[in-house]
Amino acid sequence: MLVLPALLLWLPALADPPGSGPPKRQDTPTLAQILTESKAWEWRRADPQDLLVMRLPSGRVVMELDPVYAPLHVANIRTLVRERYFDGLAIVRVQDGFVAQWDDPQGDDGGDPHKVRSLGKAKATVPPEFTRPIERSLPWVSLPDGDVYAPEVGFSDDFPAARDPAANETWLVHCYGTLAVARDNPPDSGNGSALYVAIGQAPRRLDRNLTVVGRVVEGMEYVSALPRGHGPMGFYADPKERTPILDIRVAADLPQSERPNLEILRSRSPTFQRLLEATRNRHDAFYLTPPGKVDICAVPVPVRDLANP
Amino acid sequence: MLVLPALLLWLPALADPPGSGPPKRQDTPTLAQILTESKAWEWRRADPQDLLVMRLPSGRVVMELDPVYAPLHVANIRTLVRERYFDGLAIVRVQDGFVAQWDDPQGDDGGDPHKVRSLGKAKATVPPEFTRPIERSLPWVSLPDGDVYAPEVGFSDDFPAARDPAANETWLVHCYGTLAVARDNPPDSGNGSALYVAIGQAPRRLDRNLTVVGRVVEGMEYVSALPRGHGPMGFYADPKERTPILDIRVAADLPQSERPNLEILRSRSPTFQRLLEATRNRHDAFYLTPPGKVDICAVPVPVRDLANP
Repeated sequence: MLVLPALLLWLPALADPPGSGPPKRQDTPTLAQILTESKAWEWRRADPQDLLVMRLPSGRVVMELDPVYAPLHVANIRTLVRERYFDGLAIVRVQDGFVAQWDDPQGDDGGDPHKVRSLGKAKATVPPEFTRPIERSLPWVSLPDGDVYAPEVGFSDDFPAARDPAANETWLVHCYGTLAVARDNPPDSGNGSALYVAIGQAPRRLDRNLTVVGRVVEGMEYVSALPRGHGPMGFYADPKERTPILDIRVAADLPQSERPNLEILRSRSPTFQRLLEATRNRHDAFYLTPPGKVDICAVPVPVRDLANP
Repeated sequence: MLVLPALLLWLPALADPPGSGPPKRQDTPTLAQILTESKAWEWRRADPQDLLVMRLPSGRVVMELDPVYAPLHVANIRTLVRERYFDGLAIVRVQDGFVAQWDDPQGDDGGDPHKVRSLGKAKATVPPEFTRPIERSLPWVSLPDGDVYAPEVGFSDDFPAARDPAANETWLVHCYGTLAVARDNPPDSGNGSALYVAIGQAPRRLDRNLTVVGRVVEGMEYVSALPRGHGPMGFYADPKERTPILDIRVAADLPQSERPNLEILRSRSPTFQRLLEATRNRHDAFYLTPPGKVDICAVPVPVRDLANP
């Protein structure tokens, strides 16, 4: 069988390359093996107040919000969700290699401005949270390999992030699966009623220009495999092509039986460090030339769902 | 309308952000504007001998092969295609954020070894072409912003590439859309009968471990939006989930009317340099903080199809 070893992302596609036999003693352990040996305390339970559960016809997408880097936007998004703002709206744009975006199509070009949905108690404008000051209290796990775009990269509360000590600024970076707030030209025109997820190569040029609010932690494939739009910028030329959003809920508001029970591997944990090292320097029968390095957006941050193990 | 400006990839999603009005004099021109001003000689016509045309039920995928970096594999793949090796085979694996792979399912686990398709005149083993020596005659357009994984990155014949002058080695890098050869553990076990395309964040850890043979230049969305597999490593648990490959042809073997007539913007051209600079340092009403840098895998290499303008 001709294969290519699995790269851990969110999904448990962690098998060894079939046919390669049991790993030899000196082989770098696989990501699956490393995770098997993790301790319970190395996992952080995601706060159900910070989890958004979006139901698409194809499946469930769970996103973790980060109220530390984007407190105002996260609060506004929670309000919108609790107003049922997103229910029945649609994925309006899927641009290949770039982003999938959802919002109120009536607010887009070709929509009917008289039918635009009310934001309810949510704010129409929110001050930009493109960056925030570095503070001692902010968790930070540094990555050792540098970065093309930022002076320093690492993880803050298990979100991929960057910082510029000279400017005393830190920000969440745009990786595959990043959730962020679309906006118009004015920096405060994003309010969370239009959101996008990065579905291709990390669009790092958006860093510090848009507010990142979190990342997809389950069901990314239901976003990344959406049909692409063929209008300008990946908007759907025909409204009938749009994928409807059944609803979005804060996990804490769901009945216990429907609630995802997610745990995220802490980037401060020894297991995360082992996993990072195994990604950087993999020695086994398949990898002849370990990269020796890893890009911030190529680092897996494992998630497990205790409700659906 | 809340939007996010388009990032040029392969598709002509080049519109300005709607609602932002005509660009001001001092604005960085959009990628569409830059391309509009390109000269005919700045485009290279893709050699139809180097174009693979794969027909999936959803649409046509065109891949450009690079016989300079992977001459032996490219020759073997052409032979396989001309033997009709791939016709009626299937996409057997789609691992979210990683790769889509096709091969003969009878050769995979669970297949019937007695039904494995003959390679015909193609070779069963091909020496690895993971890297090649740097030579003066190889075209090279350097990128100025460094790289996490390699000492130098740039473009060689319009393919994203890296090189290590100390080791006198150069190689094509794994970016979104890269086409490469799956293999088993022995380095020469890849022969081109199993191929994969990167569909997520650039899997750069594969660089120098697998033979890159080219990239998707049209129809990437028909690869990237394939349904994900839920078996180990993204293989389909149920064979019925596989997407059939109707056929793969060398473009030169197609009747003129069915042949893609692709032109690739030369990375040595002034227009490419303008485009690169506009990507690195975009100043307009939307971008407040230009990145000032660009990653090798975030550089667009424009393609146009003169047969389907």
